[in-house]
Amino acid sequence: MQDHIHFDGQSLHLLDQRLLPHTREYVVCRTSADTVEAIANMTVRGAPAIGIAGAFACVLAARELMEKSGPEWLPEMESKLTAIAQARPTAVNLAWAVERMKGLLRPGMGLTELLDRWTAEAKDIHARDIADNKAMGAFGAEIIPDNATVMTHCNAGALATGGYGTALGVIRAAFAAGKNIKVIANETRPWLQGARLTAYELHEDGIPVTLAPDNSAALLMAKGLVDVVVTGADRIAANGDSANKIGTYGLALLARAHNIPFYIAAPLSTIDRQAPDGSVIPIEERPQEEVTGFGGRLVSPAGVPAYNFSFDVTPAGLISGIITEKGILRPPYDQSIAKAFGT
Amino acid sequence: MQDHIHFDGQSLHLLDQRLLPHTREYVVCRTSADTVEAIANMTVRGAPAIGIAGAFACVLAARELMEKSGPEWLPEMESKLTAIAQARPTAVNLAWAVERMKGLLRPGMGLTELLDRWTAEAKDIHARDIADNKAMGAFGAEIIPDNATVMTHCNAGALATGGYGTALGVIRAAFAAGKNIKVIANETRPWLQGARLTAYELHEDGIPVTLAPDNSAALLMAKGLVDVVVTGADRIAANGDSANKIGTYGLALLARAHNIPFYIAAPLSTIDRQAPDGSVIPIEERPQEEVTGFGGRLVSPAGVPAYNFSFDVTPAGLISGIITEKGILRPPYDQSIAKAFGT
Repeated sequence: MQDHIHFDGQSLHLLDQRLLPHTREYVVCRTSADTVEAIANMTVRGAPAIGIAGAFACVLAARELMEKSGPEWLPEMESKLTAIAQARPTAVNLAWAVERMKGLLRPGMGLTELLDRWTAEAKDIHARDIADNKAMGAFGAEIIPDNATVMTHCNAGALATGGYGTALGVIRAAFAAGKNIKVIANETRPWLQGARLTAYELHEDGIPVTLAPDNSAALLMAKGLVDVVVTGADRIAANGDSANKIGTYGLALLARAHNIPFYIAAPLSTIDRQAPDGSVIPIEERPQEEVTGFGGRLVSPAGVPAYNFSFDVTPAGLISGIITEKGILRPPYDQSIAKAFGT
Repeated sequence: MQDHIHFDGQSLHLLDQRLLPHTREYVVCRTSADTVEAIANMTVRGAPAIGIAGAFACVLAARELMEKSGPEWLPEMESKLTAIAQARPTAVNLAWAVERMKGLLRPGMGLTELLDRWTAEAKDIHARDIADNKAMGAFGAEIIPDNATVMTHCNAGALATGGYGTALGVIRAAFAAGKNIKVIANETRPWLQGARLTAYELHEDGIPVTLAPDNSAALLMAKGLVDVVVTGADRIAANGDSANKIGTYGLALLARAHNIPFYIAAPLSTIDRQAPDGSVIPIEERPQEEVTGFGGRLVSPAGVPAYNFSFDVTPAGLISGIITEKGILRPPYDQSIAKAFGT
């Protein structure tokens, strides 16, 4: 499942994740602005996946400027890159991808050369993300016991990444290693990424998966039905505090109350070493209509407002380990993170 | 809002709570079997409300037997009463209402006399439930500080009772007493009683209410947006363990983790003194389709199963107090409950 992000040299094709699992339809992004819109409206979502889409958006920006701009293209380019980096606020991967691209800019470089370099770089980011996911899977499989049931939240799978998955990569690797495992996918309101995407991916792969309402996690844990919790992350601070899909923090608290290990799986590109702790991570608030409606229909009474925070922050103290492509980081995270970055 | 359960002397009219808030339509139950079906399919829901509906179902059973049966009507009556008591398993109020009715049966009593007594008793149960809710509200208002935000789960309002509410009764009483309060209503998947019913009731009453996905509770608590949690209950064991809508146990754990008081509001009829603790309370499992689909549309991939436990049990140790019509019971609950029953 690696075809959900595809660049054909001219346009970026994104599988519309808002329509899955019952409709497979691609959105074609011809410009960087198209791509920014597709990221903002959640055609593509998942921290690593929007990083990859952001990288290709930079490529599209370079193409646009080649067609239209004069020799003074740099200011216009910078405004396009800023728009890409800011398409969504919480996941650090967008800013990370744009910084990677900016790092290739050299004084006096022409747009043709830049386009070539950026295209190669975006493809490399995509390929490397998949390779990193697989490395993560190999390291992470050890924390999934045989005969375990793994609870996961939202979708940290192939669709959220270049094509294998962070949390679901760990699950896939454990399954591929012959372990008899089952998965509980929390449905993850309001977008139902668990019900629509995680259940879909795992079911397609033949990995046993059972859907559960978000609010049943505590009961399932108390019944002894959950052996380990693994989720992805959108931004990890230097001290290990981890922002992820709304509900993750609550799950981590419930896991702690039931003595169940709680792991994050994320590539090092998700770690924001500029953020000393979780308190500085911006938490996106999305339109209330995503909560007041369900399946496109207004559910609650007109005029009643709704909270729609898309993410929350799980304090490092609740996290048993952070599974990365360099191995499993353990507390104290300030030290293990610094070491993973070689500093 | 007391017209959602109405007996016209011949039929029981139930406001169809599955269609609220955007459609107001009544289901007319002409027989006890109609009423059993309306309870099972959640036309009417909420522990006290299904107790009241169950009482009127007994009245309808007596009417049916007057029309059809011979002098040996008792065995047939008992089978009808059993069906009423078992329409749903978790809330004790159904069995409680049927026991109240059975207690009025006397040897040699004719059906005409029985019908009269039962009709009066059912009306009394309905009226008394409202009075008890108001008493509960008066006692409970003290635990709602001025300027507080109260989080509640599912619907423990007028629609779940005779017509004022248990948890929402407490909120209504605090609001009526002039306190400046706000409410956060968790949407409560899969039936969305919070979004559809609690938001509706409070909005109609002019009490400020904000909807929230179930999985955002931990974040809202961490942000300091929740001062107290109050929910209803479907069955309370003799030691205070309380079964309520799925998600309540998790909320109580999260409240504890954030040092937020967690209260249950329920009439004494919800206390099952035959149940020594929560482990013996039967937890209803409802059809998977309630989780995998919405509005008749399948959300998750075909063939993926789903957990659909309707209730969970909050251990007494997580409950700050149980607000009843006799006052607020405090730990140790085995003693305060026994005292409330005068034993």
